[in-house]
Amino acid sequence: MHDAMGQVLAKLKQTRPLIHHLTNYVTANDSANMTLAIGASPVMASEIQEVEEMAGHAAALVLNIGTLNAQTVEAMVVAGKAAAARKIPVVFDPVGVGATAYRTAVAERIIREVSPSVIRGNMAEIKILSGIRTEVKGVDSVADETDAAAVAGRLAKELNCVVAVTGKVDIITDGSQLTRLDNGHVMLTRVTGTGCMTSSLVGSCCAVSDCFSGAVTGIAVMGIAGEIAHQRLAAGEGTGTFRIHLFDAVSTMDDATIRRYIRLI
Amino acid sequence: MHDAMGQVLAKLKQTRPLIHHLTNYVTANDSANMTLAIGASPVMASEIQEVEEMAGHAAALVLNIGTLNAQTVEAMVVAGKAAAARKIPVVFDPVGVGATAYRTAVAERIIREVSPSVIRGNMAEIKILSGIRTEVKGVDSVADETDAAAVAGRLAKELNCVVAVTGKVDIITDGSQLTRLDNGHVMLTRVTGTGCMTSSLVGSCCAVSDCFSGAVTGIAVMGIAGEIAHQRLAAGEGTGTFRIHLFDAVSTMDDATIRRYIRLI
Amino acid sequence: MHDAMGQVLAKLKQTRPLIHHLTNYVTANDSANMTLAIGASPVMASEIQEVEEMAGHAAALVLNIGTLNAQTVEAMVVAGKAAAARKIPVVFDPVGVGATAYRTAVAERIIREVSPSVIRGNMAEIKILSGIRTEVKGVDSVADETDAAAVAGRLAKELNCVVAVTGKVDIITDGSQLTRLDNGHVMLTRVTGTGCMTSSLVGSCCAVSDCFSGAVTGIAVMGIAGEIAHQRLAAGEGTGTFRIHLFDAVSTMDDATIRRYIRLI
Repeated sequence: MHDAMGQVLAKLKQTRPLIHHLTNYVTANDSANMTLAIGASPVMASEIQEVEEMAGHAAALVLNIGTLNAQTVEAMVVAGKAAAARKIPVVFDPVGVGATAYRTAVAERIIREVSPSVIRGNMAEIKILSGIRTEVKGVDSVADETDAAAVAGRLAKELNCVVAVTGKVDIITDGSQLTRLDNGHVMLTRVTGTGCMTSSLVGSCCAVSDCFSGAVTGIAVMGIAGEIAHQRLAAGEGTGTFRIHLFDAVSTMDDATIRRYIRLI
Repeated sequence: MHDAMGQVLAKLKQTRPLIHHLTNYVTANDSANMTLAIGASPVMASEIQEVEEMAGHAAALVLNIGTLNAQTVEAMVVAGKAAAARKIPVVFDPVGVGATAYRTAVAERIIREVSPSVIRGNMAEIKILSGIRTEVKGVDSVADETDAAAVAGRLAKELNCVVAVTGKVDIITDGSQLTRLDNGHVMLTRVTGTGCMTSSLVGSCCAVSDCFSGAVTGIAVMGIAGEIAHQRLAAGEGTGTFRIHLFDAVSTMDDATIRRYIRLI
Repeated sequence: MHDAMGQVLAKLKQTRPLIHHLTNYVTANDSANMTLAIGASPVMASEIQEVEEMAGHAAALVLNIGTLNAQTVEAMVVAGKAAAARKIPVVFDPVGVGATAYRTAVAERIIREVSPSVIRGNMAEIKILSGIRTEVKGVDSVADETDAAAVAGRLAKELNCVVAVTGKVDIITDGSQLTRLDNGHVMLTRVTGTGCMTSSLVGSCCAVSDCFSGAVTGIAVMGIAGEIAHQRLAAGEGTGTFRIHLFDAVSTMDDATIRRYIRLI
């Protein structure tokens, strides 16, 4: 798996694949900059009249419902179907699913009509999608992580996709293969959009590899970046500088860094 | 008041209240990161089909009309009424009111239909809401600050809310109590969204205290952060680094820092 | 030309002109902060009911179709006509034109109905607007730069405006005058929105000078900032810190810095 990760990063820098996003207005800038940092090229078009054609240029599509609205949901479905028809990977980030009935209905519709290749969320979001009742407070997870692997595995088999659960320990599974990652740092939870950025990294990696390896690589890169970002903090620095270090770490990440930091468990 | 501020910060970190925002797309990321920096948890849902339910999870609501549009205004009113019905604090940031007739009408409608708990604006915005003719150029204030306390006090009494006027000297009043703060730095006017971020800090603080103390604490935290951010600038650094320091300073702020810097006048 | 640039910067800081933007949600924050960094004052109103009145306060208008949608396009046309009627400069950034038929139709409509004073794009975008078939992949240019000056010059004459092509070498022409700038750094292509930010700098400069000098100054400031931002990078730093240095460099730029770095060819 280490070898695969280094190859994914190298291939991204060679090919600079176009990653089409329909995402939220809170973290769109961060997602675009993370996509560039890892070596891919972002485009954020979301007008329904152009999303099908734009998805036709892309090597992967990222759908994120952080600030969903009725119009963009329609555009997500159109873009998602176009991507699926072209057999390019679709990464779905069901931000805050469960927090409102509308959000849950939209997430279920996207899954049903688009059949995403990868679903990346926190444990609460993945539990909701699995039909398990859990407490959701806004867009951040409060679910406990027991049985996480079993829940993720069942959902992956049911939907025939990769399910990635990010949290203290990350779990990535396609229903048969399963990888656990023990990278990351708690400060990642004190910066908005680190989940969204991870989905963009996953989308970028899936554009140049199979979706299981792509999800593992994207999530590993963010976890390692979180550790490096924290290590480099000086006295008096906090979440502002940490966030800048994240972009620095991803944009300078290479095979040697991954080998040094990666903790597969 | 110093004691109250330290307690507000401590309580935020303990309870991490959810702060629902309907805000503008220019500074939404900054508002979310400031909310996290002070210890609360942001959510930015703005689709009318879900705002009532989302407001039902929140401990405070922030309404900001920076990039208002007709759809979001309706959602703001729905969310605001839901918040008022649950008696959670509603902080209203009337960005640029007076710059256009539409913006003024929207601000007046929100005040009438939502009855915000706190209105935070610059002097020009507060004067417009008080029915005083003043020059408004875009979203930044050009009004002079004479009679500020009297204008703010009258408006607070009339609307039965806390009125906070930020500027060179900040004024916070509920019509009977009044606090003046002499913290801050002129560089805060050279970064976009410092007003919006302040409203997010106020919303966060009001979630765990009475609205007068919450407004004073949120505004004090931003003012002090501005001073620390400026002090830490090195040669060749400008508004980019200053802005990052703001987040660092808020995320590391504690009772001792407030006591050292606060200037109540 | 060097003298003119220093004067433009000085005049901006004296007058702080209001720059009205209708722009995309990905880079709106960066555009606002760049506008402030160079000394102007941004406003981002995009609701159709208020754009005409807001444009009436402004000293320049920037239209950017990065995340265009049907509603905002109508507002862009209204704002653009209001600006043209008041004879204030309109800078048009045709982000990603050619990537979809809808985007191309919108760009052509804006040019036809608004008659922008300045069009700033990369070579692929300018070629598309000139009716030359070229490969467009997302919003980043893959066109080669041969004949750039001839293409830009013809378009400038045809549309009676300034055409600015940014790339490895920047070309600014009004059809008779032509300036080439050899400033900049390749890392500018690894941060999202550097093109959008350049358009905001151009809009700011055009508010206080003729459009040809304004375009040259705005583009020179961004190119020089890119060089300074790269020089100041330390070991382990990447695109995150580079981006912050950009804002630092623009906000501290002065006549002496421009004279030291500028490379007109």
